[in-house]
Amino acid sequence: MSLELYNFSQSTCSLKVRLQLAEKEITWTDKRLISSDNEHLSDWYLKLNPNGVVPTLLHNGKPIYESTAILEYLEDEFRQKKFRPTDPFLCSQLRAWLIFVDVWPAPAVRTPSFHFGGLLEKFKKMSQEKFEELKEKRPLKKEFYNSFDKNSGFSEKDIFTSFSIFERTFIRMEYLLKEFGGPWLMGKDYTIGDMAILPSIDRMEDLGLDDLWNKRFEGVKHWLEKAQTRPASKIAFYRGSRLSEQFPELNLGRGANSSVVEKYLKSK
Amino acid sequence: MSLELYNFSQSTCSLKVRLQLAEKEITWTDKRLISSDNEHLSDWYLKLNPNGVVPTLLHNGKPIYESTAILEYLEDEFRQKKFRPTDPFLCSQLRAWLIFVDVWPAPAVRTPSFHFGGLLEKFKKMSQEKFEELKEKRPLKKEFYNSFDKNSGFSEKDIFTSFSIFERTFIRMEYLLKEFGGPWLMGKDYTIGDMAILPSIDRMEDLGLDDLWNKRFEGVKHWLEKAQTRPASKIAFYRGSRLSEQFPELNLGRGANSSVVEKYLKSK
Repeated sequence: MSLELYNFSQSTCSLKVRLQLAEKEITWTDKRLISSDNEHLSDWYLKLNPNGVVPTLLHNGKPIYESTAILEYLEDEFRQKKFRPTDPFLCSQLRAWLIFVDVWPAPAVRTPSFHFGGLLEKFKKMSQEKFEELKEKRPLKKEFYNSFDKNSGFSEKDIFTSFSIFERTFIRMEYLLKEFGGPWLMGKDYTIGDMAILPSIDRMEDLGLDDLWNKRFEGVKHWLEKAQTRPASKIAFYRGSRLSEQFPELNLGRGANSSVVEKYLKSK
Repeated sequence: MSLELYNFSQSTCSLKVRLQLAEKEITWTDKRLISSDNEHLSDWYLKLNPNGVVPTLLHNGKPIYESTAILEYLEDEFRQKKFRPTDPFLCSQLRAWLIFVDVWPAPAVRTPSFHFGGLLEKFKKMSQEKFEELKEKRPLKKEFYNSFDKNSGFSEKDIFTSFSIFERTFIRMEYLLKEFGGPWLMGKDYTIGDMAILPSIDRMEDLGLDDLWNKRFEGVKHWLEKAQTRPASKIAFYRGSRLSEQFPELNLGRGANSSVVEKYLKSK
């Protein structure tokens, strides 16, 4: 059996799958790509993954892509330690949540990640021509790359829209925690539903934006602490997978961008 | 066994599920809501579906929501006539496609639907105050409602972005048709992957925007004709489920908005 994961150390979507692999205690080969070398946009990689993004799971040579589809696939194929409910109704509620994550917070986390997380530094040094060339090569991210200025980043409006989508996410999480009785989103068992959102909220905390939930969404706060301290989470978030570790020169980590959050909360 | 579907006649997401119910020949009760009465935003409905959108499937009293989660649920629970591959690899490819649909064309179809499809007529007659009140009540669509003017609709830029997302969708469909050998997206068997996208492309045709694919994506064109003429499709798309039938006073139907498409294609 061969199982290889093409991934970036710091990608939230890669982290979803690394969390699940660690939880299931599956042995896998780390095919870590270097995002600054754009290996994910090379012809050989686009043959494996037409989206040109990480992660891609290669199982016995067959490429599986889209992080949520990978989560489902690993549950289908590796049945030791289950992280998806067997009850069809609960499974449907999990899937409604997985879709919510793919449509709302998963894209929304990119805006603050790019703006505060050190990635603009890379683009500032790049010529506009080179930047345009890179944009064109991205099968799914052209609109996203068109929505910011490579030197100044995102508008305040766009950043606040991202915050507002995270608020909606927290409201939904509090709803699920109440609906199914906690301590996890789908009730007493930790599932791929928790793993799907953990990297995005961890990222928001790493960007110093944790005031978005700390004082207002108690359920989310406790859920996050509990999820981060699971042994498998410690393995998946190895040193270097957080932006504050990759860019120590930036002002990142808990509370670092509280003033932006404060401005947002006042503007509402 | 009781199976009720809360749906709108013309909603693309409702149509996905109606297609599947017809394909599987399942007996169900049609709980048709009237969108102009905003029944989907009433308190009793929000308890069933926290998104405040259609469809919701009530199976023996339990509410299942998110159209894609409903498609999976019906495959889990009603195993006569299968529309999901049993092979885990092919199933993972289907799921990657379902996610693609939820993230890209499913939201993108709303822009031309609102702009060309007669829904603005309703908003024009509404006071700004009433319109703002409605916006606030929509759990998932606030940004969308903020992105257009209730009197003039969407900007050309937004409409063209939607077209560009559909082009990306056609490219992906041609890729799948080639990858799995057709005639359906996942190969020889018709699946929920076909049902997931059929209502959105049918809608684009109904809005008169079919020149987006007619001459340039032959595979999509033939796939659409084949999908629309399935007996189950005829049942699901009953008279009144297309906008051109609901708003006969508007200029809709095949080719009706070719000039807009032409302008878009020239602008690329």
